[in-house]
Amino acid sequence: MPKISSDADIAALTHWTRSDDGIWIRRSFRFRDFSEAWGFMTRVALLAERMDHHPNWSNVWNTVEIALSTHDSGGLTAKDVALAKAIDALLA
Amino acid sequence: MPKISSDADIAALTHWTRSDDGIWIRRSFRFRDFSEAWGFMTRVALLAERMDHHPNWSNVWNTVEIALSTHDSGGLTAKDVALAKAIDALLA
Amino acid sequence: MPKISSDADIAALTHWTRSDDGIWIRRSFRFRDFSEAWGFMTRVALLAERMDHHPNWSNVWNTVEIALSTHDSGGLTAKDVALAKAIDALLA
Amino acid sequence: MPKISSDADIAALTHWTRSDDGIWIRRSFRFRDFSEAWGFMTRVALLAERMDHHPNWSNVWNTVEIALSTHDSGGLTAKDVALAKAIDALLA
Repeated sequence: MPKISSDADIAALTHWTRSDDGIWIRRSFRFRDFSEAWGFMTRVALLAERMDHHPNWSNVWNTVEIALSTHDSGGLTAKDVALAKAIDALLA
Repeated sequence: MPKISSDADIAALTHWTRSDDGIWIRRSFRFRDFSEAWGFMTRVALLAERMDHHPNWSNVWNTVEIALSTHDSGGLTAKDVALAKAIDALLA
Repeated sequence: MPKISSDADIAALTHWTRSDDGIWIRRSFRFRDFSEAWGFMTRVALLAERMDHHPNWSNVWNTVEIALSTHDSGGLTAKDVALAKAIDALLA
Repeated sequence: MPKISSDADIAALTHWTRSDDGIWIRRSFRFRDFSEAWGFMTRVALLAERMDHHPNWSNVWNTVEIALSTHDSGGLTAKDVALAKAIDALLA
């Protein structure tokens, strides 16, 4: 079971907002249209499957909301930090 | 602006649940794993883009929740009925 | 059956190479990695399904080769020109 | 560098045809339409990224051709066998 990450590691994810209960981080994305949003989601799906760590996420046309947590650990772990950074890198 | 569909047309979508306010229909899907869920979502994305009518939807690993409505019309129209039927047909 | 396009319309697709027999146009793409290539292909798939006109295409890791023709017409038509332009626009 | 697989391991992949030079295996797939073909390809893409081993492949509407080899090893290895089996399992 992955260990809970330090607050400093989570705070370093500057694009992500931590939930009040501390067990989720969230980021919202806005694209030009559905095609661009879906192309992004497809690449996140590849990351998730590769890392064996999957987001809770939703899409409405050009917007995507991603929430990350490690269910088995009951909070945020190195798996969430790594996936968040990899998602950020897709847009860099 | 598409016309609001009749209650009978919506009720005929037996796999879908209508919201209390009447302006949404929803269906939940459960798959074997993320790969199967994502393969399904990819096909729904093709339908949505082809019909130029997109769902509000979310995914958590092997589950997918889809909600349909026609925002411009403020309710359910033939666009929602057609997309719901096409989604159902993917699983038939 | 779509009409064969003029040579001028095809020549205007400056990123595409016409085959010697004149019935195909081809373009090669190179990306940073598979993920970027696949994100692009996913968006081309949405275009193809929306336009109801599909490419002959192949992928090897970070490379994608796309060939377009209109089989029913035995050559290049407005459908190929439109799809080629839409593909080019994804990269603009 | 992965080791070359035994002829017996390759021969056990009954859905796949070995090339005359012995360094490739190939399988062809036919689906109902582009949507079904693309849904399948999307799941193969997830496998490939997860296994970090990617196919040479092509698509024409409802058909998909997949060729596997391990370039670094100059032939067929356990990576090809594992990916071929995982692809077969998608259709089981």
